Amino acid sequence: MTTPEDRAAALGLVLPDYADPPYGGRYGTVKAFHRTGRLVQLSGITGEDREGRVLHQGALGAELDVEQGREAGRLAAANCLGMMRLAVGSLDNVAGICRVLGFVASTPEFTDHHEIGQAVSDVFLDVLGRDAGLAGRGFVGASSLSRRNCVELWVSFEARPTGLRRLWPIR
Amino acid sequence: MTTPEDRAAALGLVLPDYADPPYGGRYGTVKAFHRTGRLVQLSGITGEDREGRVLHQGALGAELDVEQGREAGRLAAANCLGMMRLAVGSLDNVAGICRVLGFVASTPEFTDHHEIGQAVSDVFLDVLGRDAGLAGRGFVGASSLSRRNCVELWVSFEARPTGLRRLWPIR
Amino acid sequence: MTTPEDRAAALGLVLPDYADPPYGGRYGTVKAFHRTGRLVQLSGITGEDREGRVLHQGALGAELDVEQGREAGRLAAANCLGMMRLAVGSLDNVAGICRVLGFVASTPEFTDHHEIGQAVSDVFLDVLGRDAGLAGRGFVGASSLSRRNCVELWVSFEARPTGLRRLWPIR
Repeated sequence: MTTPEDRAAALGLVLPDYADPPYGGRYGTVKAFHRTGRLVQLSGITGEDREGRVLHQGALGAELDVEQGREAGRLAAANCLGMMRLAVGSLDNVAGICRVLGFVASTPEFTDHHEIGQAVSDVFLDVLGRDAGLAGRGFVGASSLSRRNCVELWVSFEARPTGLRRLWPIR
Repeated sequence: MTTPEDRAAALGLVLPDYADPPYGGRYGTVKAFHRTGRLVQLSGITGEDREGRVLHQGALGAELDVEQGREAGRLAAANCLGMMRLAVGSLDNVAGICRVLGFVASTPEFTDHHEIGQAVSDVFLDVLGRDAGLAGRGFVGASSLSRRNCVELWVSFEARPTGLRRLWPIR
Repeated sequence: MTTPEDRAAALGLVLPDYADPPYGGRYGTVKAFHRTGRLVQLSGITGEDREGRVLHQGALGAELDVEQGREAGRLAAANCLGMMRLAVGSLDNVAGICRVLGFVASTPEFTDHHEIGQAVSDVFLDVLGRDAGLAGRGFVGASSLSRRNCVELWVSFEARPTGLRRLWPIR
């Protein structure tokens, strides 16, 4: 049986290890995630690698085309999966992605934000399966993003109850 | 006594039935909502009708004026109400809208985003009443939106506890 | 021992009292916050003072520079703290800020959105301390904001369980 990591690798994606080095080195004042009960909320996540390299810089409809936006979205989705693993120990503990709000740096004329959303959803579905990976989403145009990223994701997910929590299945 | 559907009809609004045909036909990879405990989070919702028709296309401050934006906001709000009904069976089960983040396709010069928010709030208040319909909100400018929509809403609401949950009013 | 209010004053910030006059006077249809269990979601909050005065109007990269954006972000953060106090009675009842989504009115060329986020985080950390003040964040470019504000924040936080809730430390 394949694991989520196996499936990500088969897609050519690397799920970063945000535990080593610890997340937040570049911005020491950002929390990776917050968990309230089963609800976990992640920080804004781009497609930057751990060294801060940005693959496609600029705006959709200007310097970048839809395929480049989709590629940046796939990288950002892989980073989200790495962050989920950091938050709940294993992707097997992700009960379901609540929803994904996506910001796409784009011109006033751009109309295909949903194509980037589709690319992000495909990664989540391929790696987590339909039960856990199907997510609500909205992808909207940003005038610009930090460090010329073209995609930034704002994700919340539900963790599986684990350990003692299983004894009180209250909600 | 009037129902929320009665009140929506009196406002000239139709609450779409997202159960029939099932939501997600056009984008098979989008979840309509996610429920964690009493918290329900909806996907991004525009004013498009079930056939994908967009009433006012473009940006506020450019092709569109505030009144057109308000009209698109009212349609999007009606669609949200349809989605709430899908999520919890009846609008009577909506305990309260948590908050509404609204994206308004708009030019750099546009300053009346709150007017669109007001139109959205009015629909929620008129249909759900003050207890359930009063919502937090923020309306911000997007550089552009999918398929040239001018308004997209990002909504969370609290469901009433139902069935067995009523026995343990824990939180 | 200093209080959060003491620490805010030492930073030259005033935490507004949203109880007097009551919040929502200007927009009678906006809820200040929504609490579901321990999760509290705030409305969109700018740096406007209680009279609606906006310190820096315009967009980063156009009329405004990064330092002006940071100043607006600090005012908005102080307003958020005032709203948290309204929501849970005292800043001592804030268990932790979940995350902050920040909208920065900015040109397509602007790349330093994270600098505004840093300024906001610094206020939360300085006033609430690291345990409660460290927050997830994402700061993105808006094409424009209501009433020519340059920063608007979208915040959720976790409240400490209080009163009877302390007897059932369930989640």
